[in-house]
Amino acid sequence: MQKENPSHSRREFISLSGKVLASAALLTSSAGVLASHQEELNVGQIMDAFIKEVPGSPFEKTVDTLKSGDRNIKVKGIITTMFATIDVINKAIALNANFIIAHEPTFYNHADETAWLKNDDVFNYKMDLLKKHNIAVWRNHDYIHMHQPDGVRDYVVRRLGWTKQYDTESWVADIQSSSLQTLIMHAKKSLGIKQLRYIGDPRQVCKKILLMPGAAGGQRQITAIGSRKPDVLMCGEIQEWETAEYVRDARSKGDKLSLIVLGHIPSEEPGSAYMAEWVKQKFPAIPVKHVGAGSPFSFG
Amino acid sequence: MQKENPSHSRREFISLSGKVLASAALLTSSAGVLASHQEELNVGQIMDAFIKEVPGSPFEKTVDTLKSGDRNIKVKGIITTMFATIDVINKAIALNANFIIAHEPTFYNHADETAWLKNDDVFNYKMDLLKKHNIAVWRNHDYIHMHQPDGVRDYVVRRLGWTKQYDTESWVADIQSSSLQTLIMHAKKSLGIKQLRYIGDPRQVCKKILLMPGAAGGQRQITAIGSRKPDVLMCGEIQEWETAEYVRDARSKGDKLSLIVLGHIPSEEPGSAYMAEWVKQKFPAIPVKHVGAGSPFSFG
Repeated sequence: MQKENPSHSRREFISLSGKVLASAALLTSSAGVLASHQEELNVGQIMDAFIKEVPGSPFEKTVDTLKSGDRNIKVKGIITTMFATIDVINKAIALNANFIIAHEPTFYNHADETAWLKNDDVFNYKMDLLKKHNIAVWRNHDYIHMHQPDGVRDYVVRRLGWTKQYDTESWVADIQSSSLQTLIMHAKKSLGIKQLRYIGDPRQVCKKILLMPGAAGGQRQITAIGSRKPDVLMCGEIQEWETAEYVRDARSKGDKLSLIVLGHIPSEEPGSAYMAEWVKQKFPAIPVKHVGAGSPFSFG
Repeated sequence: MQKENPSHSRREFISLSGKVLASAALLTSSAGVLASHQEELNVGQIMDAFIKEVPGSPFEKTVDTLKSGDRNIKVKGIITTMFATIDVINKAIALNANFIIAHEPTFYNHADETAWLKNDDVFNYKMDLLKKHNIAVWRNHDYIHMHQPDGVRDYVVRRLGWTKQYDTESWVADIQSSSLQTLIMHAKKSLGIKQLRYIGDPRQVCKKILLMPGAAGGQRQITAIGSRKPDVLMCGEIQEWETAEYVRDARSKGDKLSLIVLGHIPSEEPGSAYMAEWVKQKFPAIPVKHVGAGSPFSFG
């Protein structure tokens, strides 16, 4: 772990020695060696540049706030990820990056409320780590989903190879007929998933795929199934007593309906790769790297 | 499937012929052949008998309402279960039981709101099935958890063989030291689980187990971890972006903390066995059977 030193110039960022240099080498900007005369951008400028691209922005009510740091921090390097986990923060420190753009909460609840955590050891350790290294964490959730295109869906669909088959209005991909078993194998391979949960007959023919990355919630998932009548809902996360029970009942009724629960992170992680690509395009001088949060789960 | 016929007397309940007799034989009351002179109890009387045992009852605000049928239905037989799935309803019909006591929602959301489902095929099929057979479904969730003992926890702890080690105040079981791997195997065997998700090192020594069946919610799970400092949280269901991320961060910080996600149903299904036992004790003349809802998930 490399301690952050505010006196490091952008030039120094890519001239650190030893282990950190090896790491930092991964974080070179797409413009190559940085022009020393270029004015450093701050966190707020990068946030604003993304937000202004989003129709109807800025949103009055949004969870897309800074979870640590402030708008005025000069950006030395950016990490994009699904979760600003302690591991991801440590990687940012090692790479001398001081701005993490995460898709999901930093503090274990949707609104990132922290009052209930004020005496929690894990929360305090994480917050202290962020403060010590003066790292800004911005959640880009509502904005990236309302962006045109939705950066998450766009890159998930690309990874699955369904760009031509996917309809952005209905969220349905009409793919070539495949068994549920083959579809599961394809999803695992495309999205880097080791193991997942599903409901259905592995031999069921699947053609109409309702794709809903993330945790849209039971009512949205069930309503979408009801109106689209897909062969399978492929989603990130469910509440077991909502969507899973609906799918089970639909099958008992006689419907040919399956459910693939990809896991929240693998279902949306491509969106963070999109975000890194966006930074690279807009701000080629800023070093940026997508660091996958990785699934925390084992199966036993 | 046996159609319900309101003219069946309780004597007829156990004298049906053929396939139904075979099924109905499973549903004999613990008092054996029913006394024909005994007055039939209705749904409301059985609900009230349970509710009045619960400290502070009746609750002003509760999800424990009738989801179908009414209080005046004369009870021919009772099924207890985690979820009144279509499969469970069909089993009730086959067993000539007309009262289902379920622990969880019938219509895929905590409050069992149905306005949003009024045009949904699965909802309408299920509701029609219940109406056609005049089956009452009562959710017993808040009451059984506030009962002394909490019927769910009590039977889950018994199944795990931890009655002596479990503290009902802290929800902690101080068990003999065990590796996480051995603990997972024990939980799977005791609770009839095929596969589950976990976070942690299989070799970690576990002794202090925080047991929280069901889906308590991220804030409650995390707060309990923070105050009890267990070696492992063993729970039913999580939201991936809450408890799982907290446990991951705690481990990155250096804490010896693991998470076992049993699955919502297997983590609480013993509570429905408790409920069947309660009926048997209080109303020995009423045929009652615990029908496990079973996990809907496969792992692939």
